[in-house]
Amino acid sequence: MTFPSPLTGVVPPVCTPLTPEREVDVRSLLRLTGHLVEAGVHGLFLLGSTSEAAFLTDRQRRQVVEAVTAHVGGQLPVLAGAIDMTTPRVLDHVASVTAAGAQAVVVTAPFYARTHRAEIVHHYRRIAAASPVPVVAYDIPVAVHTKLPADLVLGLAGDGVLAGVKDSSGDLAAFRELVTGARSHPGFSTLTGSELITDAALALGADGAVPGLANVDPHGYVRLYRQCRAADWEAARAEQDRLCALFAITTAADPARMGPGSAALGAFKAALHLRGVIDCPATAEPQVPLSGEETERIAKLLAATGLL
Amino acid sequence: MTFPSPLTGVVPPVCTPLTPEREVDVRSLLRLTGHLVEAGVHGLFLLGSTSEAAFLTDRQRRQVVEAVTAHVGGQLPVLAGAIDMTTPRVLDHVASVTAAGAQAVVVTAPFYARTHRAEIVHHYRRIAAASPVPVVAYDIPVAVHTKLPADLVLGLAGDGVLAGVKDSSGDLAAFRELVTGARSHPGFSTLTGSELITDAALALGADGAVPGLANVDPHGYVRLYRQCRAADWEAARAEQDRLCALFAITTAADPARMGPGSAALGAFKAALHLRGVIDCPATAEPQVPLSGEETERIAKLLAATGLL
Amino acid sequence: MTFPSPLTGVVPPVCTPLTPEREVDVRSLLRLTGHLVEAGVHGLFLLGSTSEAAFLTDRQRRQVVEAVTAHVGGQLPVLAGAIDMTTPRVLDHVASVTAAGAQAVVVTAPFYARTHRAEIVHHYRRIAAASPVPVVAYDIPVAVHTKLPADLVLGLAGDGVLAGVKDSSGDLAAFRELVTGARSHPGFSTLTGSELITDAALALGADGAVPGLANVDPHGYVRLYRQCRAADWEAARAEQDRLCALFAITTAADPARMGPGSAALGAFKAALHLRGVIDCPATAEPQVPLSGEETERIAKLLAATGLL
Amino acid sequence: MTFPSPLTGVVPPVCTPLTPEREVDVRSLLRLTGHLVEAGVHGLFLLGSTSEAAFLTDRQRRQVVEAVTAHVGGQLPVLAGAIDMTTPRVLDHVASVTAAGAQAVVVTAPFYARTHRAEIVHHYRRIAAASPVPVVAYDIPVAVHTKLPADLVLGLAGDGVLAGVKDSSGDLAAFRELVTGARSHPGFSTLTGSELITDAALALGADGAVPGLANVDPHGYVRLYRQCRAADWEAARAEQDRLCALFAITTAADPARMGPGSAALGAFKAALHLRGVIDCPATAEPQVPLSGEETERIAKLLAATGLL
Repeated sequence: MTFPSPLTGVVPPVCTPLTPEREVDVRSLLRLTGHLVEAGVHGLFLLGSTSEAAFLTDRQRRQVVEAVTAHVGGQLPVLAGAIDMTTPRVLDHVASVTAAGAQAVVVTAPFYARTHRAEIVHHYRRIAAASPVPVVAYDIPVAVHTKLPADLVLGLAGDGVLAGVKDSSGDLAAFRELVTGARSHPGFSTLTGSELITDAALALGADGAVPGLANVDPHGYVRLYRQCRAADWEAARAEQDRLCALFAITTAADPARMGPGSAALGAFKAALHLRGVIDCPATAEPQVPLSGEETERIAKLLAATGLL
Repeated sequence: MTFPSPLTGVVPPVCTPLTPEREVDVRSLLRLTGHLVEAGVHGLFLLGSTSEAAFLTDRQRRQVVEAVTAHVGGQLPVLAGAIDMTTPRVLDHVASVTAAGAQAVVVTAPFYARTHRAEIVHHYRRIAAASPVPVVAYDIPVAVHTKLPADLVLGLAGDGVLAGVKDSSGDLAAFRELVTGARSHPGFSTLTGSELITDAALALGADGAVPGLANVDPHGYVRLYRQCRAADWEAARAEQDRLCALFAITTAADPARMGPGSAALGAFKAALHLRGVIDCPATAEPQVPLSGEETERIAKLLAATGLL
Repeated sequence: MTFPSPLTGVVPPVCTPLTPEREVDVRSLLRLTGHLVEAGVHGLFLLGSTSEAAFLTDRQRRQVVEAVTAHVGGQLPVLAGAIDMTTPRVLDHVASVTAAGAQAVVVTAPFYARTHRAEIVHHYRRIAAASPVPVVAYDIPVAVHTKLPADLVLGLAGDGVLAGVKDSSGDLAAFRELVTGARSHPGFSTLTGSELITDAALALGADGAVPGLANVDPHGYVRLYRQCRAADWEAARAEQDRLCALFAITTAADPARMGPGSAALGAFKAALHLRGVIDCPATAEPQVPLSGEETERIAKLLAATGLL
Repeated sequence: MTFPSPLTGVVPPVCTPLTPEREVDVRSLLRLTGHLVEAGVHGLFLLGSTSEAAFLTDRQRRQVVEAVTAHVGGQLPVLAGAIDMTTPRVLDHVASVTAAGAQAVVVTAPFYARTHRAEIVHHYRRIAAASPVPVVAYDIPVAVHTKLPADLVLGLAGDGVLAGVKDSSGDLAAFRELVTGARSHPGFSTLTGSELITDAALALGADGAVPGLANVDPHGYVRLYRQCRAADWEAARAEQDRLCALFAITTAADPARMGPGSAALGAFKAALHLRGVIDCPATAEPQVPLSGEETERIAKLLAATGLL
């Protein structure tokens, strides 16, 4: 299939199920993929932050992309993160994930190294020049500690360097600037990474959403997307309210015991395990596992929102 | 050779010379190694931030360690960074650099992923358990956006998990807490990463220094180290003053054109090129190269401090 | 008049016009007040960040509140900021602005002093206990470097300590948590401080908006508020688009010459001056004044959005 | 007396004892002043961060300066903070504290308002032009969230705008740049605000120190200063080690119960109370008071370092 231009709809950042030994659990991964595809999602984003890309070895990253692209066989677009610190290392990942079948790559600003606007521009230009597939910018300041300026992204959109942006900055005003600017660049895709204001992002014109919580409740996000597209804002708000209530699973863990990443990724996997989609709720090291009591809280939240 | 316990002295974070095509320039790397060893440095730190580890591919990282360890043949200890986001990825680098001959590994807190004290502890424990060589903690908040708490580091020192710490936090009060606490852990090595307060760090009891500027002027830092060890504080202060003046090369570039990383790493390489140690001053992408005018400024600073 | 419970509608943070000598220009202030009231705004917020409260002396702050409350004579609710570092200093401002006629006070988390959740709670409790009028929390992390947690605000709402919140955090997902939680606290008012996503905030249930840009175009925000209340989202989005385009006045100044505060507050005043509402566009010291060329750019943006 | 140029020696930021009702306890304040003067300190800094200036009302601030300057009667220089958000408000404090007898004013960068290099320069120029006494810059990023660049401070020193700098940034490398640059500006005073690296700051040429802990142990800091001036580095390091151990009182409180400010200021006052210097250990609101158990820990630390 050709990569859609623009990409629209619900594109979950797919969790990476692991075995108790922290190897990729391919059977669970394919079961999760099926669970998402059957719910009607419009694309899959592998190796994003929710996929624990930061924790997967190069071998595991390849394994994930190969397994999923083979499984979906072109039914829907598959994007893959090429998450690394700087241009040369990202280029290696681009080569690897595209060889494994990814139809677009998702790339952050440089991190670890202190960066600069001119360096970010050069970074994306070099990657786009070398990539056999479209490049989507991944704006995730909480991880890389740099916010991609809207005018930079739109400039690169205009030059054909970027095919889209996934905005996980939480800054809806800045995202709106992207959406408004993108009207001049048909084919450029604006995707929100927010679980909690998906309706608002779609209402102001976003092409789609990449919500981590869609692993747990893909039907909910697909419904929400359709309601927004149909301008049924009343229904959309009710659905979004339900999803916001469900998002409380990500803070069910004790913040004195673990960081917010362990809590959120652990919650997604615990919920998928409780719902019978994956075999083991383990997260990668050095994340702290949820306790039985914390998992119990998640079960209650799933039940309260009709998912268990 | 056995890895010294504690490691002491001047341990430059070795720059990684590149060809104009951005491949590792092994001949220049070995010439730089010789330049450092002949100046009397006490160890070499490969694949640190100054070495552009964040920019080197896995293949290039291996190449650097193999070339240098073969060249120095055990004359002096060689440490190598295992710089990556999380435990599983760091473990891959540990395996790779130790196979290539590194005698200790240098490891930061997790980054990209949001982290937590308990996760940092688990990270170091897992890595030490798997590493065939000693593990040195690398405290570099400007890169990883987390400061390693002194009591955490000292606790891991007491448990035999960490063999030392390289402190690039710039926070001398916190470093003093490490040095004072390390008195109870003979064999644990406290190394300052600061070019500008090396004398102060040694005066308060640091075991050694890992100054990026020692690439450019290893003789200066070796003299400074000896003066401090001899408690000749008058001479040390004069030497440190000279080195502080030389450090101005790292801000010779126009901050409107590039970030502070490009400016500093570019300056080290420009200086090494001007001094005839390396063949090409290129830095890795996406860093911005220095202009002719900026390089000229560096040449003047080298001349003013007697290095050209 | 009784203070409305909850306060709803458009409540502009009123600019404080100054003379060339940087004294409060009371005539211009009252003209601006009239301009806002005639446009149909639902309340006035004096001594907020947009009012340059941080720059006004205690004498000037009193002067502003006295002049405006006397002028509007209870036609519509008047809130006043009591912006200072800690509880005792805020209490002095509360006494002063309520003596001068303010019907509610708006209070941030402590700043300058490092703070803590327990201290923020105690801060608001003490202020509410001493204040003769309702207390509204002002969440403005860009100024005070602390984000008010939603559960803290809602807890204080439940206890009757807080009458509302003005959210200038830019974090719509967190604001949604406030709005959703506030359903259990009828009378508690949720106000967005964002100019750019006012429609989105109202769509998800906010009671009102406190947009700085409403000084320049109060009719626009009043229209937008009515469209949102009427659920005419099509019209609202078009109006919001127009207001977003107008907001470009806040970045018309050269960022190399001044900070974003000087640029934004200078732009609001330049626009009010160009529109004939105030006599002098001066901002308080040490802010940098806009140049003629920068003001020219603002005039063009006003013309383009139909305001000149 | 004329204000010394440069100011040198130990200049404690004087705690402000409060009554249980949170009024200034003038008798205790004068007892504390006597305790410091008799220990041989070289100046007094009122209304700094350690003095809880951020918590004192304008009336209380005046009261503090009047009481202390009358008491010391010109025996030693008295500086006072003029801590507020922006130029006009700082100017009011300058007028007030100099009327009350302060011989120099200490002024931070603007805060709350977002600032810019050009604005900081203008801020200091305006204040120096209006101040009847010398102006000392107060570099305290943890409070104002801006670091004063060394070249900015040195430029204003060269222009006669600034008479000195109090550096509470914790960044010794940047402080060294100030000290080195100040050699060209005789009369300009470089003062470190650090309790923990006072010896290091003096060793590299600082004129003096402003350590909060000197409230508790002025004799220790006076000894340390003399040892450093006599270049008796061995003795200085031992004294500094003792003071570092004593500084543990500032972290004796439970960080889950209060912020680091409450813990440190509470500890200084608890120690002064335990040593019989002040009548009541209360800190201003909204700070959290230390528990009996936490105070007990402080008593033990005082005993261990020979102060009780």
